[in-house]
Amino acid sequence: MFEIQRIIETALQEDIGLGDITTEVTVAPETMARAELVAKEDFILSGIDVAGRVFKTVNPAVDFEKLLQDGCKVRRGEVLAWLRGPAASLLQGERVALNLMQRMSAIASLTSRYVAAVAGTRAVIVDTRKTVPGLRVLDKYSVRMGGGRNHRIGLFDGVLIKENHVAAAGGIGAAISRARQKLPHTLKIEIETRNFDEVEQALAAGADIIMLDNMSLAEMRRAVELIAERALVEASGGVNLETVADIAATGVDIISVGALTHSINAADISMLFD
Amino acid sequence: MFEIQRIIETALQEDIGLGDITTEVTVAPETMARAELVAKEDFILSGIDVAGRVFKTVNPAVDFEKLLQDGCKVRRGEVLAWLRGPAASLLQGERVALNLMQRMSAIASLTSRYVAAVAGTRAVIVDTRKTVPGLRVLDKYSVRMGGGRNHRIGLFDGVLIKENHVAAAGGIGAAISRARQKLPHTLKIEIETRNFDEVEQALAAGADIIMLDNMSLAEMRRAVELIAERALVEASGGVNLETVADIAATGVDIISVGALTHSINAADISMLFD
Amino acid sequence: MFEIQRIIETALQEDIGLGDITTEVTVAPETMARAELVAKEDFILSGIDVAGRVFKTVNPAVDFEKLLQDGCKVRRGEVLAWLRGPAASLLQGERVALNLMQRMSAIASLTSRYVAAVAGTRAVIVDTRKTVPGLRVLDKYSVRMGGGRNHRIGLFDGVLIKENHVAAAGGIGAAISRARQKLPHTLKIEIETRNFDEVEQALAAGADIIMLDNMSLAEMRRAVELIAERALVEASGGVNLETVADIAATGVDIISVGALTHSINAADISMLFD
Amino acid sequence: MFEIQRIIETALQEDIGLGDITTEVTVAPETMARAELVAKEDFILSGIDVAGRVFKTVNPAVDFEKLLQDGCKVRRGEVLAWLRGPAASLLQGERVALNLMQRMSAIASLTSRYVAAVAGTRAVIVDTRKTVPGLRVLDKYSVRMGGGRNHRIGLFDGVLIKENHVAAAGGIGAAISRARQKLPHTLKIEIETRNFDEVEQALAAGADIIMLDNMSLAEMRRAVELIAERALVEASGGVNLETVADIAATGVDIISVGALTHSINAADISMLFD
Amino acid sequence: MFEIQRIIETALQEDIGLGDITTEVTVAPETMARAELVAKEDFILSGIDVAGRVFKTVNPAVDFEKLLQDGCKVRRGEVLAWLRGPAASLLQGERVALNLMQRMSAIASLTSRYVAAVAGTRAVIVDTRKTVPGLRVLDKYSVRMGGGRNHRIGLFDGVLIKENHVAAAGGIGAAISRARQKLPHTLKIEIETRNFDEVEQALAAGADIIMLDNMSLAEMRRAVELIAERALVEASGGVNLETVADIAATGVDIISVGALTHSINAADISMLFD
Amino acid sequence: MFEIQRIIETALQEDIGLGDITTEVTVAPETMARAELVAKEDFILSGIDVAGRVFKTVNPAVDFEKLLQDGCKVRRGEVLAWLRGPAASLLQGERVALNLMQRMSAIASLTSRYVAAVAGTRAVIVDTRKTVPGLRVLDKYSVRMGGGRNHRIGLFDGVLIKENHVAAAGGIGAAISRARQKLPHTLKIEIETRNFDEVEQALAAGADIIMLDNMSLAEMRRAVELIAERALVEASGGVNLETVADIAATGVDIISVGALTHSINAADISMLFD
Repeated sequence: MFEIQRIIETALQEDIGLGDITTEVTVAPETMARAELVAKEDFILSGIDVAGRVFKTVNPAVDFEKLLQDGCKVRRGEVLAWLRGPAASLLQGERVALNLMQRMSAIASLTSRYVAAVAGTRAVIVDTRKTVPGLRVLDKYSVRMGGGRNHRIGLFDGVLIKENHVAAAGGIGAAISRARQKLPHTLKIEIETRNFDEVEQALAAGADIIMLDNMSLAEMRRAVELIAERALVEASGGVNLETVADIAATGVDIISVGALTHSINAADISMLFD
Repeated sequence: MFEIQRIIETALQEDIGLGDITTEVTVAPETMARAELVAKEDFILSGIDVAGRVFKTVNPAVDFEKLLQDGCKVRRGEVLAWLRGPAASLLQGERVALNLMQRMSAIASLTSRYVAAVAGTRAVIVDTRKTVPGLRVLDKYSVRMGGGRNHRIGLFDGVLIKENHVAAAGGIGAAISRARQKLPHTLKIEIETRNFDEVEQALAAGADIIMLDNMSLAEMRRAVELIAERALVEASGGVNLETVADIAATGVDIISVGALTHSINAADISMLFD
Repeated sequence: MFEIQRIIETALQEDIGLGDITTEVTVAPETMARAELVAKEDFILSGIDVAGRVFKTVNPAVDFEKLLQDGCKVRRGEVLAWLRGPAASLLQGERVALNLMQRMSAIASLTSRYVAAVAGTRAVIVDTRKTVPGLRVLDKYSVRMGGGRNHRIGLFDGVLIKENHVAAAGGIGAAISRARQKLPHTLKIEIETRNFDEVEQALAAGADIIMLDNMSLAEMRRAVELIAERALVEASGGVNLETVADIAATGVDIISVGALTHSINAADISMLFD
Repeated sequence: MFEIQRIIETALQEDIGLGDITTEVTVAPETMARAELVAKEDFILSGIDVAGRVFKTVNPAVDFEKLLQDGCKVRRGEVLAWLRGPAASLLQGERVALNLMQRMSAIASLTSRYVAAVAGTRAVIVDTRKTVPGLRVLDKYSVRMGGGRNHRIGLFDGVLIKENHVAAAGGIGAAISRARQKLPHTLKIEIETRNFDEVEQALAAGADIIMLDNMSLAEMRRAVELIAERALVEASGGVNLETVADIAATGVDIISVGALTHSINAADISMLFD
Repeated sequence: MFEIQRIIETALQEDIGLGDITTEVTVAPETMARAELVAKEDFILSGIDVAGRVFKTVNPAVDFEKLLQDGCKVRRGEVLAWLRGPAASLLQGERVALNLMQRMSAIASLTSRYVAAVAGTRAVIVDTRKTVPGLRVLDKYSVRMGGGRNHRIGLFDGVLIKENHVAAAGGIGAAISRARQKLPHTLKIEIETRNFDEVEQALAAGADIIMLDNMSLAEMRRAVELIAERALVEASGGVNLETVADIAATGVDIISVGALTHSINAADISMLFD
Repeated sequence: MFEIQRIIETALQEDIGLGDITTEVTVAPETMARAELVAKEDFILSGIDVAGRVFKTVNPAVDFEKLLQDGCKVRRGEVLAWLRGPAASLLQGERVALNLMQRMSAIASLTSRYVAAVAGTRAVIVDTRKTVPGLRVLDKYSVRMGGGRNHRIGLFDGVLIKENHVAAAGGIGAAISRARQKLPHTLKIEIETRNFDEVEQALAAGADIIMLDNMSLAEMRRAVELIAERALVEASGGVNLETVADIAATGVDIISVGALTHSINAADISMLFD
C-alpha cells in the first residue's frame, strides 16, 4: 500500500539529506526549467510511474508527462517523459528517479530475454527472493513488465519446503502433512526435491508444486514424466540464458531465475534539460 | 548512525513480513542447527559484519563467528563464517544476509579490478551517486573495501556545480563565487567542465576540483597540463575496464565510475547447513 | 517479524504517553513487587507470551514466569504467570498486558466453541478479515490457539474473487483465467459463488476453492455434491453457534466465521499484587 | 493530532500490504464504481468520518458523501454514505472502513444503553482504560457519541491513586499529599477506596474524586452520604446493564464501565456496490 | 514512555548521520579511553541520566558512572560523571550529551532562582508551553529539578480557556459550562481573566483555577481578595526575576514563567579525556 | 529533504497530542477567524516560512500571507504575517509556530550583532554543533539569516581533527595523512591546534584549515602571520560580543561562536486575533 512511497522517500532522504547545497546557492527558487527523460539504448521500460512519483514527492508542482507505458519496448533515442517545473526540483529528483528507473528497466529487459528464450514451450519464467533488499516490490514488478511471473513475495505468503525443513519435520510426508493441516487452505504447498525418490514421496504426500533442484536435463525430463501433471513442476538452479531453452524443453511448468534480479546492468537513461 | 540497522530491518520485514510460515509449521522452535557461509567463487569480501547483524537482529541468540575480514581476497571454497543457533532463526536470516553480502562483495570485487587497472598512476577510483536506492551507505562502504575512495555521499555534503547550475547562476565565475560565499568553508568546490574555455574560467574563479566531463584522452591530457596542479582533476564519463588505464595515464587525479554500483553481478555465496 | 513488538509499543505509548504520573509521585523507583496473573473465569489461554513481552518492554528487569502455555484450557482461579520486578514497572505494564491477553483469550475461547460444534465432520473453522484494525496478527494467532485455522492474512497473500471482481473482469471464467495467468503459481484461486450456475462456471474454469456465499443448507448440500471434491468448498455467511453444526453436516470443507474476531467478550483476568 | 491517520494507515498496511492481488488482476484501474454504506440493524452511528478518511487515504480521488452524522440513531436499512470512485479503491478500502465503523458504532450503541438506563439520576457513564490496544482514541470518541463521558485518556493525563500506590506511599494521606505537591495544579486527584475508613482518610486528605471500588449498593449509599458533595463520587466494579440503574440510584456522580469497550458485538453494516 | 529515547536518537542521527568521518579514519575501533564530565561553573544539575543514555545508545559497551544526582547544586570544578569505553564512542556521544545536559541544567538553575525569589510566600513557580519544540519533556523535567512545578504538558491534558475560546463559546459562563459537561471529570477548569468583571463571572461559573493575565500588582492583590480561596489563582505575564517577588507577595497561588524555558544560557560543562 | 516537516510534526504532536481539549469543547469547527503575527520588539526575522508550514500542517485550509521575508530587520509593532482560517486551527498552531519563530529570530538577531561587530575585517562568523538537539537545521538556517555562515552540519559532512584524534592517530601528520587518503576528496581537512608547534606541524602536513583553540590575541596574531594564507585560519573559544572585534582584528578568516545557538533569549512575537 505505502511501500513504493516509502522507497521513494528513503531514496530522496538518502540522496538529499538536509539539502542540495549546490542548487541552493546557484539556482533561484523561482527559476523554471523543462527537461526530458531519454533512452540511450534499447530496453523494456519499467519504472516510468515511479519516476513521476519521485518528482511529485520532491515538489507536487512539477509536471510529469509520460509518453510511454511500463512494459513497452523502447528504442535508443526515444523520449520517455517530459518534465516541467522549478529547476531546483528537477535537479533534486533527477538522480533518484534515474537510479530507480535504470534498475527497473534493466530487470524488465533481462526478463524479456529469458521469456523470449522459452517461447513456444509451456514454461513460464519466474523470479526468486534474490532481490535487492528494500526494493523487492519494484524488482518483482519489473519482472512482470518483462513478461515474467512472480514466485511468492517472501516467506509469509507462500510455502516452500526445503531440505532443512524436511529434516526438521522428519521426512517429506510429515512436512507436507503439517503444512496442509496448519496453514491457510488458500496456499499451494511446494517442496524442493533432489532426486526421484524425493519426487515420489512428494507426489505421494500430495504436494501441489514440486521443485527440481539442480537436476540435469535428463533428470528433469524423467521427473516431468514421473509427475505426469499431478503437480506443477518448477526447475531451479543453474539457469542462465544459455541453458534456459533446454530446460524449458524438458516440459517443466516453471523456471525460476535468480539472475533476473541479482545480476543486472543498469539501463542507460538520461535526463536532458532544454 | 542507525542507517545499517534500518536497512537490515527493512530487508527482514520485506522478506519475512508476518512470519516464515514454512518454517513455523515444520521446524520446532527448540531445534538447533549449525551452518557456514561459503564462497562459491573468488571475490573481495564485503558485508561479513552486516551478515552477522542480520542474524543477530533475527535472534540475538545466534552465534556468528566470522573467519575473514571485509576487504580480504576470498578463494572459491573458503568458509567465511560459522553460525550456530535455532534452526528457524538461521533459515529466516539466510536470504537477507546473502542478498546483502553478495551485492556488497560484488561491488568490492569490481572496484578492485578498476583499482588494479590504474595501479602505478596517480589516479584514484571513486564512486558516484548511481547507487541502489536505500543502500548507498553499503554500496559506498563496499567501494572502499575494494580499494576505491568515495565521492560525496549525496547532495548535502559536497558541492558539484553542473551545467544547469552554471546556467542558472549566470556563469562559472558567478556560480563558484556564490558557493564560496555561502557554503561552509569546510567544503571544496567542484565544477563540471566540458571544454578548455570552461576549465580556464573554473581556474580563474578558484575552483578546488575540476571535473572533465566526457572529454577525449587528448583533451584530458591537455586539461591536466593547463590546470597544472592548481586544482584537483576528476575524469568522468565513458569509464570502463577497457578505458580506465588510458584515462589514468592522462594524469588525472580522480576517476569516477558509475558502473561500480549500478551494474554488478552478485558474488556467489552459499549458506550450508551441517 | 517486528509486528508484535510494534503492537506492544503502540499500546504502551497510547496508555503511558509521557509518563505514569500517579506512580511517579507515589512509588519510589527502587520499590520491588511481586504479582500474579489469575483467571477469573474458564477460558482457552492466548497471549501469555505477549503479556510477558509487554512487561519486558516496559522494563527488561521484570521477571515473568509463565505457568501455562497458549492453547491450554484454564480454570477459574488458576494462576497464569508470576511476575517480579520494580513495582512501578508492573503497574505500568498491567493494563496493556491485560487488555491484550483478555481479548486474545476471548477469541481463542470462542473459536474453540465453534470447533467443538463441528467435531466429527470434515469441516474446519477459519477466520476472516473482520479483525480489529492493527491487531490482525494477534487475532489470527488466537484463532489458531482455539483450534481454528486461518484464512488468508490480507488482500496480499490470497486470491478471493468476489462478485465485483467477476463483474469487472467480464465473467467468472475470465476472472479465474486472469488470476491463473498473472498471479504467483503458489496461490490457490478462490471464488465466491451465489448459485449453482456460478458454481458450475467456477468448476469449469478450474477454481481451486469455491465459496458458497449465504446459501441455504439444502443449497450447500447440493453444491457439495456438484463439486464432488474437484475443489475445496467453503461456507460463508449466516454462521453462528446455532447454525454451524448443520452447516458442517452439509459436507463443506471450510466454514469461515467473522464473529470469531469481531464480536467477543473479554476474558476475565486479573493481576494481583502480593 | 496525527493519531487517527496513524490508525488508518496501520490498518490499511495490515490488510493490503504489498497489494490487493485479486483486484489488481481482475479490475482495470480506470473502472469506476458507486457504492453505499448501509445499516443492516439499528444502532448509534460512530465512525462515519473515519470511514471517509479510510477511502481518501486509499485514493484521494474517491468521493465520499456522508448522509448522517456520528451520534445519530440509525435504523436498519438506512444509507449512511454514498461513495464514488475507482472500483479498485472502493474494494481496497471496504474492509478497513467497515471494521472500524462497525466497532465504533457498537461502542456508541452499547454506551447509549447504559446512558438510557441511568436517565433521571445524577450519574454520568464514563469509560475506562480497558480499550483495544491502538484504538483508544476511537474507542473513547465512540463512548462520547453514545452519550457517555470519558475518564482520563491514559496514565499521563489523570491521577488515580490505587491500592498499590497507597501502600508504596505509606498511606492515603501521604499519597494524596505527594500528588498535590508534585503534579500539575490543573489535575484533580482521584483515589480508589474499598471501605468507609479509606473514604474518610481520602476526605481528610482533600481528595477531589473518590472511587468506590466494588462496594455493595448499601455501602455506596452510605459513602455518598458520608462524602456529602465534598468530593466527586465514582462507582466502579460489577457494573452491567442489570445493575447500573440501581448503582445510579445510590447518588454517585460517575459510573465507570469497562464493558463499553472490552466486550462489544460489531454493528452490522454493509457496503453495497451499485 | 519512549519519548526520551526518541529525543536521543533524533539528536544522534542529526549529529552523526551516516558516520563520524573524522573519528573513523583517525581512531582505531579498539582504542579505549576514559573521560569525565566536569562543571565549569556553578549550576543546578539536570540531565545526568539523559547523558548516560546518550552514550549507552551510541554503544552499550560504554561505562557511565554518575557521581551526582539531578537536582543537586554543583560547584565549578566538580566532576559529574566518569566514562570509560571505546574512544570512538565517547567522541561520538560527547556533543549530544553536552548539548542536552547544558540546556537542561540551565533551565534547572534559572528555575531555582525564581523559586528562591518567592521563598516564604504561598506561590509556586510553574512553567508554560513556551518550550523548545521536541524537547518539552526534558524542559519540564528540568523545571522540576530546579524546584518548580509543571503546568499542563500540552493542549491535551489540561483545560485553559482563553479570550478567544470565551468569544467563540459566547461568554465565560457558557465556556466553563461546556467544558464541565464534556471533558473528563478528572481535569480542573482554568480560565484566563483580564479584569474583575471576568474574575467574577469565572467564580460564578465555578472555575477551578483563575488566571490573572497581565494584571498590575494592585489588581492582582484585589483579585486574590475577591476570589478568597474559592479558586486557585495563577499570575501570568510580565514575570521576571525583578518582579516575581512582588507578584508572589500579592498572595497568588501560582506564577507561570515562560522565560524558564525560552530564554536560557547553556550551563558550562566540559568532557575531559584522560 | 523531510527534516523541517519532521520537526513541525514532532512539535505539533508534542503540544496537541490526542487533541486540544479546550478548543474542542468551546470553539465550533466552522468558526472562522483572522489573526496576525506581530513583533513586540526589534529583531532580525527568521522562521516566517516555518510558521506558515506549521499552520498548513494543522490544516491546509488556513491562509497564511507573509508580509516580510526571513533575514529582514523587523521593528517593534510590525506585522509579520496575516492568517485566516478555522479559529480552532489557528489556536492549535499558535504556540508551536511562535516557539519556533521566536527561537529562530533570536538566533538571527544575535548572529547579526556578532557580524556587525566584525564588520570591516576579513573574519566571517560561523556557528558550531552546540545547537538544540533536533533543531540543528533551523538553528543553522537562522545563523545564515543573521548574516553568519555555517560550519559543518555534523560529524558526517566535515573533517575536524581534534586533540584526541591526533593522539589516537599518533600525531598531527599521521592524522592529516590518513584523512587525506581515506576521505572524499571533496572535503577540506581542518585541524585544531593549541600552540605554534602544532600549527607548524599542521602546515607541514598540508591542513586546509587550522583552528586556533583558545589562543590569546597575541598568539592568534602570530599564528596568522605564521600561516600566511597557506591555510584558512579559524578562531575558537572565548568568543563573546566583547571579545569578537579584537579577535577579528588579528586577521583570522573565521570565528566560530557557540553562543549563537546555545544561549539565546526568545524574540518577542505575538499572535493577535481580530
